Amino acid sequence: MTKLLLKTFGISKLLPKTSKPASAPGTVTYIGKKQELPVKLHMIDYNETDFTEKNLESLVECLPFKDNHTVTWLNYTGVHDIQNINEVGEIFQIHPLVLSDIANTTQRPKVEEYDNYIFTVIKMCYFKENTGEVYMEQVSLLIGKDYVISFQENDIDVLEGLRERIRNGKGCRVRRLGSDYLLYCIIDAIVDNYFSVLENIGGQIELLEKELMLNATQELLAKIYGLKQELVYLRKSIWPMREVVSTIQRSEHDLVNEGTYVYMRDVYDHTIQVVETVETFRDMASGMLDLYLSTMSNKMNEIMKVLTLFAAIFIPLTFLAGIYGMNFEFMPELKWRFSYPVWWFITISLVVGMIIYFKRKKWL
Amino acid sequence: MTKLLLKTFGISKLLPKTSKPASAPGTVTYIGKKQELPVKLHMIDYNETDFTEKNLESLVECLPFKDNHTVTWLNYTGVHDIQNINEVGEIFQIHPLVLSDIANTTQRPKVEEYDNYIFTVIKMCYFKENTGEVYMEQVSLLIGKDYVISFQENDIDVLEGLRERIRNGKGCRVRRLGSDYLLYCIIDAIVDNYFSVLENIGGQIELLEKELMLNATQELLAKIYGLKQELVYLRKSIWPMREVVSTIQRSEHDLVNEGTYVYMRDVYDHTIQVVETVETFRDMASGMLDLYLSTMSNKMNEIMKVLTLFAAIFIPLTFLAGIYGMNFEFMPELKWRFSYPVWWFITISLVVGMIIYFKRKKWL
Amino acid sequence: MTKLLLKTFGISKLLPKTSKPASAPGTVTYIGKKQELPVKLHMIDYNETDFTEKNLESLVECLPFKDNHTVTWLNYTGVHDIQNINEVGEIFQIHPLVLSDIANTTQRPKVEEYDNYIFTVIKMCYFKENTGEVYMEQVSLLIGKDYVISFQENDIDVLEGLRERIRNGKGCRVRRLGSDYLLYCIIDAIVDNYFSVLENIGGQIELLEKELMLNATQELLAKIYGLKQELVYLRKSIWPMREVVSTIQRSEHDLVNEGTYVYMRDVYDHTIQVVETVETFRDMASGMLDLYLSTMSNKMNEIMKVLTLFAAIFIPLTFLAGIYGMNFEFMPELKWRFSYPVWWFITISLVVGMIIYFKRKKWL
Amino acid sequence: MTKLLLKTFGISKLLPKTSKPASAPGTVTYIGKKQELPVKLHMIDYNETDFTEKNLESLVECLPFKDNHTVTWLNYTGVHDIQNINEVGEIFQIHPLVLSDIANTTQRPKVEEYDNYIFTVIKMCYFKENTGEVYMEQVSLLIGKDYVISFQENDIDVLEGLRERIRNGKGCRVRRLGSDYLLYCIIDAIVDNYFSVLENIGGQIELLEKELMLNATQELLAKIYGLKQELVYLRKSIWPMREVVSTIQRSEHDLVNEGTYVYMRDVYDHTIQVVETVETFRDMASGMLDLYLSTMSNKMNEIMKVLTLFAAIFIPLTFLAGIYGMNFEFMPELKWRFSYPVWWFITISLVVGMIIYFKRKKWL
Amino acid sequence: MTKLLLKTFGISKLLPKTSKPASAPGTVTYIGKKQELPVKLHMIDYNETDFTEKNLESLVECLPFKDNHTVTWLNYTGVHDIQNINEVGEIFQIHPLVLSDIANTTQRPKVEEYDNYIFTVIKMCYFKENTGEVYMEQVSLLIGKDYVISFQENDIDVLEGLRERIRNGKGCRVRRLGSDYLLYCIIDAIVDNYFSVLENIGGQIELLEKELMLNATQELLAKIYGLKQELVYLRKSIWPMREVVSTIQRSEHDLVNEGTYVYMRDVYDHTIQVVETVETFRDMASGMLDLYLSTMSNKMNEIMKVLTLFAAIFIPLTFLAGIYGMNFEFMPELKWRFSYPVWWFITISLVVGMIIYFKRKKWL
Repeated sequence: MTKLLLKTFGISKLLPKTSKPASAPGTVTYIGKKQELPVKLHMIDYNETDFTEKNLESLVECLPFKDNHTVTWLNYTGVHDIQNINEVGEIFQIHPLVLSDIANTTQRPKVEEYDNYIFTVIKMCYFKENTGEVYMEQVSLLIGKDYVISFQENDIDVLEGLRERIRNGKGCRVRRLGSDYLLYCIIDAIVDNYFSVLENIGGQIELLEKELMLNATQELLAKIYGLKQELVYLRKSIWPMREVVSTIQRSEHDLVNEGTYVYMRDVYDHTIQVVETVETFRDMASGMLDLYLSTMSNKMNEIMKVLTLFAAIFIPLTFLAGIYGMNFEFMPELKWRFSYPVWWFITISLVVGMIIYFKRKKWL
Repeated sequence: MTKLLLKTFGISKLLPKTSKPASAPGTVTYIGKKQELPVKLHMIDYNETDFTEKNLESLVECLPFKDNHTVTWLNYTGVHDIQNINEVGEIFQIHPLVLSDIANTTQRPKVEEYDNYIFTVIKMCYFKENTGEVYMEQVSLLIGKDYVISFQENDIDVLEGLRERIRNGKGCRVRRLGSDYLLYCIIDAIVDNYFSVLENIGGQIELLEKELMLNATQELLAKIYGLKQELVYLRKSIWPMREVVSTIQRSEHDLVNEGTYVYMRDVYDHTIQVVETVETFRDMASGMLDLYLSTMSNKMNEIMKVLTLFAAIFIPLTFLAGIYGMNFEFMPELKWRFSYPVWWFITISLVVGMIIYFKRKKWL
Repeated sequence: MTKLLLKTFGISKLLPKTSKPASAPGTVTYIGKKQELPVKLHMIDYNETDFTEKNLESLVECLPFKDNHTVTWLNYTGVHDIQNINEVGEIFQIHPLVLSDIANTTQRPKVEEYDNYIFTVIKMCYFKENTGEVYMEQVSLLIGKDYVISFQENDIDVLEGLRERIRNGKGCRVRRLGSDYLLYCIIDAIVDNYFSVLENIGGQIELLEKELMLNATQELLAKIYGLKQELVYLRKSIWPMREVVSTIQRSEHDLVNEGTYVYMRDVYDHTIQVVETVETFRDMASGMLDLYLSTMSNKMNEIMKVLTLFAAIFIPLTFLAGIYGMNFEFMPELKWRFSYPVWWFITISLVVGMIIYFKRKKWL
Repeated sequence: MTKLLLKTFGISKLLPKTSKPASAPGTVTYIGKKQELPVKLHMIDYNETDFTEKNLESLVECLPFKDNHTVTWLNYTGVHDIQNINEVGEIFQIHPLVLSDIANTTQRPKVEEYDNYIFTVIKMCYFKENTGEVYMEQVSLLIGKDYVISFQENDIDVLEGLRERIRNGKGCRVRRLGSDYLLYCIIDAIVDNYFSVLENIGGQIELLEKELMLNATQELLAKIYGLKQELVYLRKSIWPMREVVSTIQRSEHDLVNEGTYVYMRDVYDHTIQVVETVETFRDMASGMLDLYLSTMSNKMNEIMKVLTLFAAIFIPLTFLAGIYGMNFEFMPELKWRFSYPVWWFITISLVVGMIIYFKRKKWL
Repeated sequence: MTKLLLKTFGISKLLPKTSKPASAPGTVTYIGKKQELPVKLHMIDYNETDFTEKNLESLVECLPFKDNHTVTWLNYTGVHDIQNINEVGEIFQIHPLVLSDIANTTQRPKVEEYDNYIFTVIKMCYFKENTGEVYMEQVSLLIGKDYVISFQENDIDVLEGLRERIRNGKGCRVRRLGSDYLLYCIIDAIVDNYFSVLENIGGQIELLEKELMLNATQELLAKIYGLKQELVYLRKSIWPMREVVSTIQRSEHDLVNEGTYVYMRDVYDHTIQVVETVETFRDMASGMLDLYLSTMSNKMNEIMKVLTLFAAIFIPLTFLAGIYGMNFEFMPELKWRFSYPVWWFITISLVVGMIIYFKRKKWL
């Protein structure tokens, strides 16, 4: 789980990590932020008519539901306890590399097809209204015949709406169809959440744009820079999602029914929209940076103009005054009666002349 | 409907939205600007010899025309009334995801083929001469055997020319051919409207270019920036149109006759032209920004030159005057007879010398 | 016909236009600059042994040559008279969309294959030595069995060399081969003309480069900017030519003989060379802009240095002089005998010290 | 072996070299940094049950192990002794071009399939904690039936973890499977090492970012520049790795078992992650450069403001003082009683007025 | 032959040229720099056992060697004598377009397959140590059964090493294999020569980098700019080489034996390396330009700081001195005993205060 706020944003979130170089491939090691949350295991089992929901103490409790031709959705909250992941591996006969990928929360989104199941890693992005922060975490999905196992890092309610639909919607589409439709529903819910994050970022851009027109400060620069880095981060997590969804869509795996095709195409369209919006936002952030620089340079010009004006007008005048401050004994002008008024006349003419000149040059 | 003027342009128009994350996929919810216009339903039914035109109160009235082997064009104005969309769904047996897409006015242009119909979303862009504003809205098209249903957000006359042709042109091509040719005609009319918008933007660019050469102000910068954002927006809506038209062109769907192929290729060429022109305009806007910055920097240089000139010439002179303003008792020069004229001679020589020097340096 | 000079260059040339949005697809309307030239129709009819050349009054005169197994080359000068285009359409049975494309001089280069003929639109670019101007116009080509019909906007002699070869070269290749080889010859002549335009632009770049090194003025900036826009324009017209030539080359149309393949490959290579040269020129223009900006910034630095020098040296001195210009009654230095020489000593030491300091800083 | 520190980084590392132009293709010549290390030859021979490890004096000692159906891993440290490479060529019947490639340490990563063996060149990148330096060297791999021969430039322990696993892990996967799995293990270990280097660079970026916000100095600029060059270098060595791994993965060579496919896909994912991270880092370095420039320009503005302020306030005042420093005989103000206090009043009013003005302009 | 030095580099080298637009396709006209060298014709004829080397007076002398089942390598130095080229065309039955391409030294590298021969155009790039200059020229190659005809513009020794190998290496690979292997050897020798040029450019970059850190002058800017243009030029000539080599490699022409495949792959790898290095160098040159600009801007800042410092410190002091230079009759301070020392105290305090302030602002 990663906060995506400007201040707390750090490079380390961008770094993928693998298990210790020396460890054997397929070794299951948790890689991610230290977690202290207890692991929760939640189960939903349903078909068109029946519905069971339970918090399980251990995976063994789900065994009776596993092969009863109803769709079983197991949801793990917390992947830092590799014990549980290994247990899943044994009971559902999962490839060790997959288990190792589940425990590594710095994966790139991907989909892998195995004989009896499909493994998918996606990034979930959500905006917490109460704290005003954006979080990102990894969701791993195992889809088998009649079951879906999802692993998430934290206990958040992005998928709660989906669960509610399953609970209430006796006879609705998700209850009638199989595990591949449930997979679609989960991905759809996650992709839809990106839109709320994008709306949040869009709001920020709009605000920055307005501020920029009013007052280009150093903090604004830092904010635009932060925004750009944020978008780099978002792009990195959403870009491979396109590929993931498109792979599932074109999949000829037995587990993916043809009827799900049209739904996957829909979620694919949404993913494309997210990607394009992120790209557009990056363009706009670059545009804002250009605008910032131009505005700065404009401001500089204005300051320079004032400086030049004062200097150009008063420096010659000071010289003019300096001349008659000299103490030469033989300076005829000093004795003349109207020297002083004439001096003032010359001085004022000079000022007026220069102001007219600068007005013509459009510097005033 | 989105105004595309520099001032009223806001980021929110760039944001795609989906229905509430928690709602089931395929739920039909209106997403877009709040609308208060009444929904209108207009019908044209024609074949080579006959022609009927009606404003319908309800969809049921069109049922007698639906299966009479003439082409029926139903046009909905206003998609915020989801009641109507659902009705269409029932009568024409449309997939719920399609209905949900029709009600969502933030879609990406796309085409989807179903067994009995083709669904297309495109963006319509038009320039209102009286207000001088550019609007963009979404048009959804359902093409079935012998019928076309179009949904637009507002009541505008982009397609009126086409209707006129159908009305008057007894025996003309559109009357002889089927619903796929009508689809082509609608897309062609919409793409052609982009050209008028581009002409408008081209005019703006030309104006900005001229202004830029005369006077590079801060507002000009804001205008160029606004123009660039506008082009980002246009590009986002026209880019996927290429794909849409090319998909229809290459389609092997029963509804698309081979004879329409050559027409689709023509509209595809136009789309490419629009895309290329938008790209070219973006290049030109970038070029203008560069020019703006260079002009600013040139201006700065000129101001600096004046400052330097005044400072470099008068500061030493002021010093020269300051020397003989000192009150030391023993300053022999003060008592000499020709000190003052000699001082003036030195001063003027200095000024002339410096002016020659600066002329050589090309600063004057 | 479009002048491609820096000053007269306008955005409107970049805008593709289609017929009035409300008109039916395939309506033949002239789109382009207003023309007052009379339309000319010129015919060449040849085979290996025979040769006929005529200026025709009307198209009907060519009918006897149409089906006589010799190659007939009809050349229209002026496409604003849609009457003639419609006549061609009737006699040679041309698709209405093609006729509409011929009359629209803002087309994108393209090639379209029909059952009995191939339709090609290309852009011709030529440099008029006497006026020093570059023009661009559209050439449409209809290639059928034993005939080629070419439409050009103006009466220029780009193809005159080719005609001369046909006239004189009894038994030469062009006389032996069919209409597809004539098509190749026309395209080849047009592509070769791009090289002369590029040479002209290359000369401009070389000149600008030299000037840039000597003196970076505001006009130079405008010239570089104009050059870049010019290249944007050239690129837009030559880029799709690649596709056109490559499509003809790979064509399996009956009209294109296998023997022409090697010639088409040759003209394709030339097109690629033009495209690459345009790209290279764009790179160079961008490089020049960078150089311009850097040169400006260098110049600024030099001016700043002078300013700083004068200010830094004379401002302290003026202060030094100011001190002893004060009129305090009790200033012991004023009465000392050697105050004045000492003051000069201090002043001169200061100047020398600062000059040494600035020399070390490399500001002098 | 190349240090990748900012200071020691030189262009020469980027230059590929081939053998002397005049030498025949396939001539085995060592190309790389001068080496004085003795060449070491280390052998591991294992199958599921047995394990032998030896330091060999000469290649001939390995012959008994070569054909005994166990996997034999020969590791050469040092490729500057071409004698050994030629010996390998003879005994294992390797193509002369391959031998020449092994001796040339400036190769581009690649994979080549021959009838009896696969030849792979990859770049190994590792971070030495004790010196804080990053090194890069070339590893060449020959994979045959039951044997793997690896050539590295230096004696480092990147592969030591893997060896340890083979030593201890009786019955573990690597002991059960063939030479293709060993190949995977070696590539996996090398790719995983890139992550530690990236973490190191990521740390540098984070540090630079923080420093940048505090104080933008010239050294910082040099560091950012150095970082960018470093990333250019890294990218050049990791980019072709994608292709290498993907080629092995899709290989239909007899030596690559289908079971290894899933492992190769895993290492391919890691390579993609490295590539994407390098790209992201480049984006961030570019962003930092922009930020640096903007910060500089901000700083300049602030300095200019102070200058303008002082100049604009004090230059007019100095003039004001200069007026009454003039020695005209007839200056009535000089004799007035309250001239001096009035002068002060005017002076102070002016200062206050200007400060208010500048405050409004937001320059203070 | 083109010098590639910064000063002598001109745009004209980038311009491809074709024969006079009006001339017939396939007309053999020399296009290139005026040449006065005599044309030389050199022949090597060899097989595994025999070897003949001769300078021929005319092409007819080679006829006895043409069909004797040994490889005959004819090398023309000088292509401005089109007489010779036409002779080759007649004797070896070469397509006229090929002959025309040989005589045109501004070709783009390409390969064309004909029934009895393969035609290849490549660019040769070499560094002359004695003059320190880089030259580029075109080499055309005709490969037939048992013969290779090469055309080069000048008499240089790039291929001398290869000839030496053929002369001495009785029984070596080149003597055993056919004309396709000779083709490979020639291309390999030419590509290898690019590396020496790249090394030279790399050295220049390294030097520029060092100078840049020390002192950013205007000449340095011109050098970086020149380097970038040079790389644009190199890229233009090496980029299509990739395609050339890859086409030969994948060729299924009878003349290319399968055994040559592995060698062509090797030279392809080298070409890729050259291309990538050129790209990397371009990146680095761009990076240097950025660094240059930043350094300039840094320098400017430093100068500005000094200016500001002097101005900010001395302008107020001058004012302070100016106050007491006024000649008002009633200025009480002038008569006070300790006015002068108090004035000095205030002045010095001010200076110290400002220095402390500027130190804090980090401007000192």
